[in-house]
Amino acid sequence: MVHTFGEVIEYLTAGIQKPDQTVDKLQPGIPESEVRRIVTAFSASQYVIEQAVLLGANLIITHEGVFFSHQDNRELLADDSVYRQKAALIASAGIGIYRFHDYVHRYTPDGIMEGLLRELEWEPYVERHLPHVTILAIPAMTVSEIGGYLKQRLHIPYVRAAGHLSAPCRRVGVMVGYRGNGAAAIPLYERESLDLIIAGEGPEWEIPEYIRDALRQGRGQALIMLGHAESEAPGMKLLAERLGQQFPDVPVDFIQDQPVFQIV
Amino acid sequence: MVHTFGEVIEYLTAGIQKPDQTVDKLQPGIPESEVRRIVTAFSASQYVIEQAVLLGANLIITHEGVFFSHQDNRELLADDSVYRQKAALIASAGIGIYRFHDYVHRYTPDGIMEGLLRELEWEPYVERHLPHVTILAIPAMTVSEIGGYLKQRLHIPYVRAAGHLSAPCRRVGVMVGYRGNGAAAIPLYERESLDLIIAGEGPEWEIPEYIRDALRQGRGQALIMLGHAESEAPGMKLLAERLGQQFPDVPVDFIQDQPVFQIV
Repeated sequence: MVHTFGEVIEYLTAGIQKPDQTVDKLQPGIPESEVRRIVTAFSASQYVIEQAVLLGANLIITHEGVFFSHQDNRELLADDSVYRQKAALIASAGIGIYRFHDYVHRYTPDGIMEGLLRELEWEPYVERHLPHVTILAIPAMTVSEIGGYLKQRLHIPYVRAAGHLSAPCRRVGVMVGYRGNGAAAIPLYERESLDLIIAGEGPEWEIPEYIRDALRQGRGQALIMLGHAESEAPGMKLLAERLGQQFPDVPVDFIQDQPVFQIV
Repeated sequence: MVHTFGEVIEYLTAGIQKPDQTVDKLQPGIPESEVRRIVTAFSASQYVIEQAVLLGANLIITHEGVFFSHQDNRELLADDSVYRQKAALIASAGIGIYRFHDYVHRYTPDGIMEGLLRELEWEPYVERHLPHVTILAIPAMTVSEIGGYLKQRLHIPYVRAAGHLSAPCRRVGVMVGYRGNGAAAIPLYERESLDLIIAGEGPEWEIPEYIRDALRQGRGQALIMLGHAESEAPGMKLLAERLGQQFPDVPVDFIQDQPVFQIV
């Protein structure tokens, strides 16, 4: 059965109230195009686009911006060689790219959060989903043990941890992407009696400085920064599964890119 | 000779045009207080305040906010135990805290940048200082070698690096603190023919994603994220030296805190 880009996007956004402003858009591409094959990924990186071309996919669904910014500021890069080579690849591939960011975060529960919890097999421990954080009561593990578990489940080489690594954790708050900011996260430690917050990314002068002081005061609060991509890629993997179920005639692949940082 | 908090602040801000808005302020404290001893630090953390008390200092000069935010949102934390214990320590110590952020970044060259370059012994390689970045031409080293050098000079356990670790670097851009953002940094690679940007901190979806693509395209651009505190603490160390020269009767100590993150 033939499906169009527009039908896929309609499925992805169905029932979600249109945000006042959104970065989500199909560019390049037109809704009337027939979908041959779909690739989902955290970012439509050079590698992901190359893999999509190799697979014969003509629609990439990406969570983050294609050209290294949340707002799409590609005109600032018009003369940049990396930009130009990537833009040329996209044009020559004749591929459509749909940015799927704001809508998936408005799913109930947040579709990106759900993917991460699924990948961690932590869904049975969810106590409740709040708008920007999910509260879990997990079987007790130390911060170190949780770090090891995250690395194993997410196939990532490291996590950054602050606080006592041997502190036992049972109550955990999970925040994907750039939600690891102080105003959102710090009050949660006491309000939700959290032992640990696991976040994607956030300003280093906020939660980390709070944890630095909590540790010095002899308290057990801890923080694990997973990495932005590391926290959100599983949501795009779950999306690939769901698209496969919804459009059984359209092959769908999730592409996992390499971690961008190495520890030296 | 007796000096007051006000005289120290006057020295620190002399000749710098007052910013329209600034986070820099003396709180707690009054300008008329006599300075007994000064401590400088990246942040007035629990540990730094304790050390200041032990040393008999009554003025802490800190670069970042005391309560885990750039804008001083301490009222959000009024009931938080970590906040309350720290606030009680500050009150009982009878210590003054001067936030010195915007003014030192307006020095020519930026006083925080200068401290980092001094600590790296890279001042001889400076080509020029631009407002948010300093361009250097260093003796050729690979990204890995530079990572090792940074760790050794700054006494830090790790850096995060993106790009080819074996790529040779000669032209380097250095950006302290949270200046490692895409709009500021990405255009520099080509405009300044940079091999490497060394930044404190910045959004992971901006420069890192650009480097991810550059690497995949076979290009040599690289990025090292030092950490926010790691990039700015040396500026506060240099400040302690300068205060010691300006006020020879007042003991001045720079306090180095532990890195907040461990790699797991």
